[in-house]
Amino acid sequence: MGYRYDIRLSGSGGQGLILMGIILAEAIGIYDGKYVAQTQSYGPEARGGSSKAEVVVSDQEIDYPKALKLDLLLAMNQKSCDDYYMDLKPKGILVVDSTFVNQVPIPRAYQIPFTRIARDKFKREMVANIIALGAISKLTPIVSARAIEAAILARVPKGTEKLNRDALRAGISSAKKVEKIITSAPANLLENEDT
Amino acid sequence: MGYRYDIRLSGSGGQGLILMGIILAEAIGIYDGKYVAQTQSYGPEARGGSSKAEVVVSDQEIDYPKALKLDLLLAMNQKSCDDYYMDLKPKGILVVDSTFVNQVPIPRAYQIPFTRIARDKFKREMVANIIALGAISKLTPIVSARAIEAAILARVPKGTEKLNRDALRAGISSAKKVEKIITSAPANLLENEDT
Repeated sequence: MGYRYDIRLSGSGGQGLILMGIILAEAIGIYDGKYVAQTQSYGPEARGGSSKAEVVVSDQEIDYPKALKLDLLLAMNQKSCDDYYMDLKPKGILVVDSTFVNQVPIPRAYQIPFTRIARDKFKREMVANIIALGAISKLTPIVSARAIEAAILARVPKGTEKLNRDALRAGISSAKKVEKIITSAPANLLENEDT
Repeated sequence: MGYRYDIRLSGSGGQGLILMGIILAEAIGIYDGKYVAQTQSYGPEARGGSSKAEVVVSDQEIDYPKALKLDLLLAMNQKSCDDYYMDLKPKGILVVDSTFVNQVPIPRAYQIPFTRIARDKFKREMVANIIALGAISKLTPIVSARAIEAAILARVPKGTEKLNRDALRAGISSAKKVEKIITSAPANLLENEDT
């Protein structure tokens, strides 16, 4: 039996989640050489402004490309956090944009203000998704920072390469800081109530 | 039982097929209000330079989001045409970019030189995918030209709206011309040998 790693990236329309999904899938599939399926679904409610993109990774061909129980959930707003956290596996990782997510439903969550970093450091909210990709590359074993960088540079508009490379690095640094906080906290504070 | 309509967009990396898939999915899902799943898959062979994006449309939630037997295949190069035409349903529609596809495996195919039109009319090969979307909106009942236009304008870079709107219209016109040729040809020439 091979492995399967299920990721959902969620938030509002306009936060660049679908581009994130494509970059993450291309990083893992093209640059890291694993099997990847990347999916977005829309229904009649799609005008509501919610957005999600899914990435499934495996060491063998993927029969069922929709995410099932999640190894990683990125929630870029409160609604997507509330709607999807119950789909996490017991040891699944929750990463939230703490600019917009104030109530975290499980204790073991990585809370990073992606949009505030984008705003304060780069004066461009639109790079919040690239900062989040940097954090994900640090917080999970599923993709290398090198592959993420190559995939980003292949997808972003010409002339924005430096901005996006800097945003990626800011994301990696932000995750390093949060990892320290989480791993130094007493274990009982971090127990996953959702198990 | 509801309906299901399976589309595969295929060609070379760099032809903008994934962006096409997203625009087509958003046109049908967000603007036309149907259920849509949009998927791309990568394997260890993904560096080879082939690219494909799939769009599945239904009047109900889509359990299995990968394309099965195809109602519509767009082939933007010869290899993708050769690799995938056998996945067409007997009455499925084959649309090829005749700039690169010289050998059409079934008689009933819409041959339109998307890339040559992009090059000659717009001096930008990169709009070949938008021209192809225009043709698809004319040749199939699955998406309205109005929805495609709204989805394109929401996705393309600021400042390129007029270029892309003109490319869409050029695609619609190109399909009108080809439709006339196909529908006026003797029926026996058009019989699908693949049935």
